[in-house]
Amino acid sequence: MKLLLKIQYDGKNYCGYQYQPKLPTVQGKLTECISAFFGFPCKITGCSRTDAGVHALGFCATVEPYENMGDFWCTVPEGKIHRALNPFLPADIAVVGDTRVDDSFHPRYSVISKEYLYIVKDSLCRDVFSENRAFRIPRRLTDEDISKMNLCAERLVGKHDFSAFMAQGSSVEDTVRNLMKLEVKRFDADTVHISVCADGFLYNMVRILTGTLLDVSAGKIELSEIESILLSGDRKKAGFTAPPEGLYLKEVNYGGTVNFKTL
Amino acid sequence: MKLLLKIQYDGKNYCGYQYQPKLPTVQGKLTECISAFFGFPCKITGCSRTDAGVHALGFCATVEPYENMGDFWCTVPEGKIHRALNPFLPADIAVVGDTRVDDSFHPRYSVISKEYLYIVKDSLCRDVFSENRAFRIPRRLTDEDISKMNLCAERLVGKHDFSAFMAQGSSVEDTVRNLMKLEVKRFDADTVHISVCADGFLYNMVRILTGTLLDVSAGKIELSEIESILLSGDRKKAGFTAPPEGLYLKEVNYGGTVNFKTL
Repeated sequence: MKLLLKIQYDGKNYCGYQYQPKLPTVQGKLTECISAFFGFPCKITGCSRTDAGVHALGFCATVEPYENMGDFWCTVPEGKIHRALNPFLPADIAVVGDTRVDDSFHPRYSVISKEYLYIVKDSLCRDVFSENRAFRIPRRLTDEDISKMNLCAERLVGKHDFSAFMAQGSSVEDTVRNLMKLEVKRFDADTVHISVCADGFLYNMVRILTGTLLDVSAGKIELSEIESILLSGDRKKAGFTAPPEGLYLKEVNYGGTVNFKTL
Repeated sequence: MKLLLKIQYDGKNYCGYQYQPKLPTVQGKLTECISAFFGFPCKITGCSRTDAGVHALGFCATVEPYENMGDFWCTVPEGKIHRALNPFLPADIAVVGDTRVDDSFHPRYSVISKEYLYIVKDSLCRDVFSENRAFRIPRRLTDEDISKMNLCAERLVGKHDFSAFMAQGSSVEDTVRNLMKLEVKRFDADTVHISVCADGFLYNMVRILTGTLLDVSAGKIELSEIESILLSGDRKKAGFTAPPEGLYLKEVNYGGTVNFKTL
């Protein structure tokens, strides 16, 4: 038996999710705090890596003791672990749900799809409350701009080789992904939300998709070019890499098998 | 001629608005940064004090040189000062509008009314993104709770002696204020907004009003007691003082005379 936790974090103060010695990472902090809570070393396995500065609303990670302790190492009732754990976590990491899964469950390999949210502030003026939590562009996105971005998005949705939307230097072999959703919506007067869902993501894919949509809205990339950019597999032809602070890992879908308990 | 600035700040890292030697304050930081921008010492006068940890969306403050320099000390065009100034300010303070006012204008004495927003998170679970930016109560406010709070609010609106809603130790003489608006509204699934507008506020008045509304929702204070609490003038009879992190100075109304220019 493993615990599966749903985790929220503000990525500002972390060098990404993945453990790196001597650097503040979300995995490092979780390992330290959760081991302190249980009183024995725990192994934390995440559903993915997130870059430095990227946030999470529904990151998923399993917890298991490093030493085999059978099925009874956790005595806190399901649905209450996050309440017990949160006082052990720093202010920028919170467990928001928990459940138990079989030992065979792997938080990365069992993923069916993941959903990201990218928050754009289209405001001429700074906003202190979205500092480090959104990407501000100093121009207004008109309704027409947003329609254009959605037309671009429609051409990107589907099962494609997304090499052109992968950061250079990545060594992944299979670059085909099924992009199930890419939608741009105005959220409030100066906030635009970009929702992205796929069966998996290449390195920096959401940020390059976002940068491409924004480049289309600015007229730097024409709608008619999108198909050839996809086919080219050439990173240099797609848009810029939008910065990490606007990106949130929103939801991980494991199918019907996982049901988080929350308070 | 004075400049009048509309200012946004995240109060988390400040010991309140008002200058205190050797402590981080919003006024101290503004004085330092704006003087650096203009190249001569500037006097910053705010519309009110805010407590440590309290935020602002529309704080107002005037800027004037300490030495008389006539009317031409500021050469930046109206409506552009905030764009010029913001790079000189820290990430948690931003100027969001500006205008020019006569030397006779005083940002505190010219106030007609001020509006505050108090943000309550009614969630059983922690939320890292509202940490220090809202007051979380670990119970749900039902529609019935909110109706009850609004019934209480109706009994408080009007011109009253608000002594019972003033922190003890305050030395102000006239404790009569005209409370023009006190409204409780659900904002989203786990956020409730309390809007408060008055011609002036006693020390901690918004936080005590909020605490009283929450005590009413929790059944700790009965609706029928509100009138006698007001009449008693006894701070001990009103509700608790809600913490500063949920409080935002939203808007200062100077009547039709002031029109902020924004980008």
